[in-house]
Amino acid sequence: MDLKKAIREIENFPKEGINFKDITTLMQDGETFKYTIDAFINDLKDKNVDVIVGPEARGFLMGTPVAYGLGIGFVPVRKPGKLPAETISYSYGLEYGSDTLQIHKDAIKPGQRVAIVDDLLATGGTMEAAAKLIEKLGGEVVSMQFLIELEFLNGREKLSQYEVNSLIKY
Amino acid sequence: MDLKKAIREIENFPKEGINFKDITTLMQDGETFKYTIDAFINDLKDKNVDVIVGPEARGFLMGTPVAYGLGIGFVPVRKPGKLPAETISYSYGLEYGSDTLQIHKDAIKPGQRVAIVDDLLATGGTMEAAAKLIEKLGGEVVSMQFLIELEFLNGREKLSQYEVNSLIKY
Repeated sequence: MDLKKAIREIENFPKEGINFKDITTLMQDGETFKYTIDAFINDLKDKNVDVIVGPEARGFLMGTPVAYGLGIGFVPVRKPGKLPAETISYSYGLEYGSDTLQIHKDAIKPGQRVAIVDDLLATGGTMEAAAKLIEKLGGEVVSMQFLIELEFLNGREKLSQYEVNSLIKY
Repeated sequence: MDLKKAIREIENFPKEGINFKDITTLMQDGETFKYTIDAFINDLKDKNVDVIVGPEARGFLMGTPVAYGLGIGFVPVRKPGKLPAETISYSYGLEYGSDTLQIHKDAIKPGQRVAIVDDLLATGGTMEAAAKLIEKLGGEVVSMQFLIELEFLNGREKLSQYEVNSLIKY
């Protein structure tokens, strides 16, 4: 199945010059959505993954069905102030300013094998932050899975110490 | 399975006097997470649902695995400015001020049978707004599914014209 055909491209969103990849058209069709989640599951099923981590909010859309399909748990990584119990934080630089992500301190047990799932690999900053949080808690990041990879942004280089899989490349 | 035991209660979050129900403990355990999603699927499987709608962000956590398990599509309802294509909006009153939700104009086709899935039924305002958006697009809301219902807030009354199912009641 050509998943790229199911993605809608929106010019100049969220700002001038950006050609946004809209995944909602892929998700609202039951057949392409199931095909997508099954593709992630197929890549992960022999990797003895204990838990899926997904960054807020579009990582929730891809990560929870993958966790359900594998019969394992799901752990959210969120922006500051969203997670109610004790958290650890990781801040990372953006083009202008910085961003912070948090994870619950008891969400990952030492030694757990973790796969991170997100919709988009751009520069890799979010994914690197998620990996650092998991590693701080003693987890092992065994795979990073993306629906879309924007190859011209070289995010894969930043994540070169990890296994990276993407379903659609631009 | 007693799902209530898998929910963590956090006092005074997000503000003084609120006893927050933390669903992350339920989700990070593969067994309780699968049991939860299967319970939703079991309630919906004979209702000829065409598509699942989930409100940002915790509705994504519950709604996408339910859609995947049923083999149908998922449509997000989001806060203003998050959806990239043409949207319709619905504003609703809160205790102080108001809130607005949006849906893509082409996300629901007229006549589609829709189930809305969310983590929490409190006053029912978010769910009512989601239903209005679906109905504006010509969809039929055949079921509303919640992980948790706070019965003392009487959200079920506000939603009395709809079928409401909740897995855990407080």
